[in-house]
Amino acid sequence: MCEDEIIVPRPNTTVPMNKEDQLIARIQKRLGPRGPVDGREVGLALGAGDDACILRAMPGREWVASIDAFIEGVHFARRIHPASSIGYKALARATSDLAAMGAAPRSFLLGLALPASLTDAWLDGFLDGMSRAARKFGMALAGGDTSRTDTIAINITVFGEVPAGRAITRSGARPGDRIYVTGRLGAAQLGVEILLRGIASKPSLRRYLAPHFYPTPPIELGQWLSRRRLPTAMMDLSDGLSTDLDRLCRASGVGARIRKASLPIVGVPETLQRQGVDALQLALDGGEDYQLLFTVPSRSVSRVPSSGGGVRITEIGEIVGGREIRLILNDGSSVPLPPHGWDHFGRRARPKAARRITD
Amino acid sequence: MCEDEIIVPRPNTTVPMNKEDQLIARIQKRLGPRGPVDGREVGLALGAGDDACILRAMPGREWVASIDAFIEGVHFARRIHPASSIGYKALARATSDLAAMGAAPRSFLLGLALPASLTDAWLDGFLDGMSRAARKFGMALAGGDTSRTDTIAINITVFGEVPAGRAITRSGARPGDRIYVTGRLGAAQLGVEILLRGIASKPSLRRYLAPHFYPTPPIELGQWLSRRRLPTAMMDLSDGLSTDLDRLCRASGVGARIRKASLPIVGVPETLQRQGVDALQLALDGGEDYQLLFTVPSRSVSRVPSSGGGVRITEIGEIVGGREIRLILNDGSSVPLPPHGWDHFGRRARPKAARRITD
Repeated sequence: MCEDEIIVPRPNTTVPMNKEDQLIARIQKRLGPRGPVDGREVGLALGAGDDACILRAMPGREWVASIDAFIEGVHFARRIHPASSIGYKALARATSDLAAMGAAPRSFLLGLALPASLTDAWLDGFLDGMSRAARKFGMALAGGDTSRTDTIAINITVFGEVPAGRAITRSGARPGDRIYVTGRLGAAQLGVEILLRGIASKPSLRRYLAPHFYPTPPIELGQWLSRRRLPTAMMDLSDGLSTDLDRLCRASGVGARIRKASLPIVGVPETLQRQGVDALQLALDGGEDYQLLFTVPSRSVSRVPSSGGGVRITEIGEIVGGREIRLILNDGSSVPLPPHGWDHFGRRARPKAARRITD
Repeated sequence: MCEDEIIVPRPNTTVPMNKEDQLIARIQKRLGPRGPVDGREVGLALGAGDDACILRAMPGREWVASIDAFIEGVHFARRIHPASSIGYKALARATSDLAAMGAAPRSFLLGLALPASLTDAWLDGFLDGMSRAARKFGMALAGGDTSRTDTIAINITVFGEVPAGRAITRSGARPGDRIYVTGRLGAAQLGVEILLRGIASKPSLRRYLAPHFYPTPPIELGQWLSRRRLPTAMMDLSDGLSTDLDRLCRASGVGARIRKASLPIVGVPETLQRQGVDALQLALDGGEDYQLLFTVPSRSVSRVPSSGGGVRITEIGEIVGGREIRLILNDGSSVPLPPHGWDHFGRRARPKAARRITD
């Protein structure tokens, strides 16, 4: 009847991809299964770019998956942590859960919420760090989701692969099993203490930051242990030994005794010792080491090497009946070891200064 | 040498679980594979409570996975959206991606970041909504992660199952294929328009809010279509038809023509029409319908029913060669249809008022 009234903003027909899709394409290009890591190699039947990814069915093997959040103002600060560390660590933290199952890391989904102002240089640094981690761990991006927010929030779901029935859980520890940890406890928290004191620019202290900025979960070692069926229980140390050992013991319905003298405690530089940084406290309550905590039956102790994949392995105590966890001091006496590590919804989000054990 | 100096805050041996673990246990109890949904039924060899979940290997079947963020101030507002809607919709949105692959939903990982003040009544409402969705879709919690933040951020990774090789991607549309949508387009955005105008309490308008608060992706229909191998391409409508059709066409390397007269446009109440709410604009650019968009070869058109699982199926146009997407108006003329739906990193996050097509 009436003349058509048509107002279309840009009546050209070659429409650029929307900004969000452009951003996704950029991320995909950096992290997707092209180049060094091939889609089939990482078990993807379909990767990023569709509604969902498809994990290849592999006879005799199972998929293992875990989600992990890495949030500005909670887990990191933009003015302290380089973009590359944030990208690297977001993936390393999540992948640590795969190491703890004895799984081989394969791919990951990236949920990335960030301010529009960070989509340029900052994002490049972030993607540099994340792709460095992806190459190191042998993973490729399987898909993702982006949102614009005021603060950065990264959510990663990692996929790993294990021979069917071989994944190692937290719940298999039995009285008499020996308790082991990998690496040096408290190394990541030592980096935090340096950053908090604003002395990170001192050349002599810089090397202590790496375990906090660029943690390396012992992925090969986790798989090696699981292939040999050595651990009865295993988990990663993300929230501090006192908290994570408590979790392992709860899951297994057991107690534990660990020896102070056996703990592979991080070496604290004198400058920090003088400022009250206590090595034992870092080792017991410091989070984010992303090392492994595992238990082995006493009959298999001789099969546990002293190191694996360049990472030190240390026996620190044993599993006992009951539900109590105690720390044996150097004079043979012992004290209860309540969990004092990272607790998001507890009163504090840093190790309690109140813990002071000396002998 | 010296006397042991031991200061341990609470020297009792029965230590309560830390607050974060308590929270996780509460979430797990509500959403985990107990009660109506059994762990084996949802394909979990190991569910929540360990470092990672294990997805059961199933001969001849593949796992499909997708991550989705649902963030306060971006996707919802605490003062507008009931906690139960937030919990329900977080899972429904993510599950929509499984429907779009033709997959059967099975389980999910929940990344939950929220203020400590919301861990009581609000969380109960949230978990009510989420467990309602989980039951409806036949899913159980497979694992999760919690963080304390100032604003609520929910990240969900969903797992679904398809017969190997049967998942339907976005990239298979070919010239000549007919284009279909399910449901009524713009229904969710109509709810948003009502909320934005502060007239949601009017009894006559209340029923229009359901598609926005509690969307229901056509999960059964997606599986039905995939079992019959009908669609050449399929995706969900999350960001509006104009944007999502553009994505499907880009992925398939094709163009499209859709007919205005065929669009199953939501009915807009007169009150809102008078206030300038345009039904066609809602249908073309309104997001969050979580309906399906799919293409079928012309030879199979007779096999496409007019509805499925109580959801209407409508043919709206056809795939053509080239890369152009055009809207055919009622008088036979046509206009380009650029993507104007939701774009997080574009200039706007709501349909452009500038779009006005009348004939």
